[in-house]
Amino acid sequence: MIDKKDVAIIGLGPSGVSAAIYLKRYGINPICFEKELIGGKVNKTDRIENLAGFKSIKGPALGYQFEEQLQSFDIKPIYKEIKRLSLNDDGTFHLEYDKNQVRDFKYVLLANGLGERKFPIQGEESFSSRGISTCAICDGNFYKGKDVAVLGAGNSAFEEALYLATIARSVTLIARRELFRADESIVKRFTALDNTNILAPYEIKEAYGTSTLEGLLLINNKNGEEVDLKVSALFLYIGNVSNCGFIDINNILDEKGYIITDEKMMTKVKNLYAAGDCRNTALRQVSTAISDGALAASMIFKDYQENK
Amino acid sequence: MIDKKDVAIIGLGPSGVSAAIYLKRYGINPICFEKELIGGKVNKTDRIENLAGFKSIKGPALGYQFEEQLQSFDIKPIYKEIKRLSLNDDGTFHLEYDKNQVRDFKYVLLANGLGERKFPIQGEESFSSRGISTCAICDGNFYKGKDVAVLGAGNSAFEEALYLATIARSVTLIARRELFRADESIVKRFTALDNTNILAPYEIKEAYGTSTLEGLLLINNKNGEEVDLKVSALFLYIGNVSNCGFIDINNILDEKGYIITDEKMMTKVKNLYAAGDCRNTALRQVSTAISDGALAASMIFKDYQENK
Repeated sequence: MIDKKDVAIIGLGPSGVSAAIYLKRYGINPICFEKELIGGKVNKTDRIENLAGFKSIKGPALGYQFEEQLQSFDIKPIYKEIKRLSLNDDGTFHLEYDKNQVRDFKYVLLANGLGERKFPIQGEESFSSRGISTCAICDGNFYKGKDVAVLGAGNSAFEEALYLATIARSVTLIARRELFRADESIVKRFTALDNTNILAPYEIKEAYGTSTLEGLLLINNKNGEEVDLKVSALFLYIGNVSNCGFIDINNILDEKGYIITDEKMMTKVKNLYAAGDCRNTALRQVSTAISDGALAASMIFKDYQENK
Repeated sequence: MIDKKDVAIIGLGPSGVSAAIYLKRYGINPICFEKELIGGKVNKTDRIENLAGFKSIKGPALGYQFEEQLQSFDIKPIYKEIKRLSLNDDGTFHLEYDKNQVRDFKYVLLANGLGERKFPIQGEESFSSRGISTCAICDGNFYKGKDVAVLGAGNSAFEEALYLATIARSVTLIARRELFRADESIVKRFTALDNTNILAPYEIKEAYGTSTLEGLLLINNKNGEEVDLKVSALFLYIGNVSNCGFIDINNILDEKGYIITDEKMMTKVKNLYAAGDCRNTALRQVSTAISDGALAASMIFKDYQENK
């Protein structure tokens, strides 16, 4: 039988960490699963300067602070990837997290973040955090007065390119096709600026530089012509990917695979909550994820109090 | 004429600070008003241990970090209290912040926090942050295994008393009347616990102790009998108070005086946003306020981009 107290948190990025802290302080011991590193994507961010309270902190340093904080609450994560989450007939949840390892829970908080869309650029890995970024809001400020490029053709690519144009000397948007997925109005706003440029249809053949990114070798998709683009940064906006393939419960995801919640972090299924990047939210930031986790934990505690 | 960029932030608690940082990074210079200290209520919190990223930080130290962070973004607050906010005929906002000082803005973010309900207890001020607290979630953990008291008779008083009962050795709820405003179910849950007690109808006559709180002198409202209650902490839950009296715009407050927003921090009035404790939110925490501020700023930026 499941203990009424059994709460699982799937993922220990900022939202999962925040929820674990709140639950522990509410007197509930959550079982926390993490497949990689505590802190999730913050570990892949060079520097965070937009989180109130931290003037400037290296992403991995923040991840380490999360880890220390969980230790101070005596929370010991289970470092396993969840293979499958399903709903039992009695409304509890069934988690499979390893060969033959299963466990049932009364409450589940999904805090599994985003998946990374794989995109093969020669040299890309060596410039991760040193010129190649997936977050203009996070890293754009480090390229004040520099020339930067954005790869992508959707609204978010153009939105971030517009943001970068207020900071960088020039912004070149690279699109693989001549037709953009983005709204016409945003494309027009981008092209109307003095310091912007669009290269389409181009692919990135290679990223180069000595210690940090110095430029990109591009190839025209139509005529094969090569272009050498000197830039200090490349921002990838080829879209986020849902990381929710393991969820075997109907009707809780939107068309893009993100978890639908209300403003109290509740999914459509009773006792199933979601927080942070994995849900269909308007803004995916460390601060919003931490808030989501606190809110989800307080809702779980409230339900727990009412039903114990 | 108002510059299209004119954005005012009213209040520099966690939500206002977060919004200011985001706006500045979006290339917008907000004009920030603060009537007291940067950080708002965090300055009145002894220690914060439930904010992911900070294992333990003194409230005023966090306030100072906010201040340093704003300085690093070259944000210079105007230390004035807003006397009146009204709506001009053209949809812009009119702020009066001092004798004869007025200024109009295109966008306003309300981040004015909560008011403090004044409650006269002899000795109360000397124990603020050293035994007398208004936040069980924030400070409850410091009284593990100790005897504590809660003053209040509403749902939030009982909710926090229930939370404290999971931490403290004993929790005595002090109510001024024998009838409680709280739901019967929550009163029953509280009285069913072994380590709880209700004293009603009692008033607190005096709080005493050498350096930290040691006890309370209570007086029975019916028969005048005095009780000496030895406690290490007193949590005041006599209700929050809206701080929105200066807002002279119709239909944006709920019946308790909090600002009604949607999940994107928008009020019912175009270009008027609210973030943090001043809005009608399910949870009032530093983390939720920081998130609110980031979200409000991103929405202001989005609107600004679409209309410039």
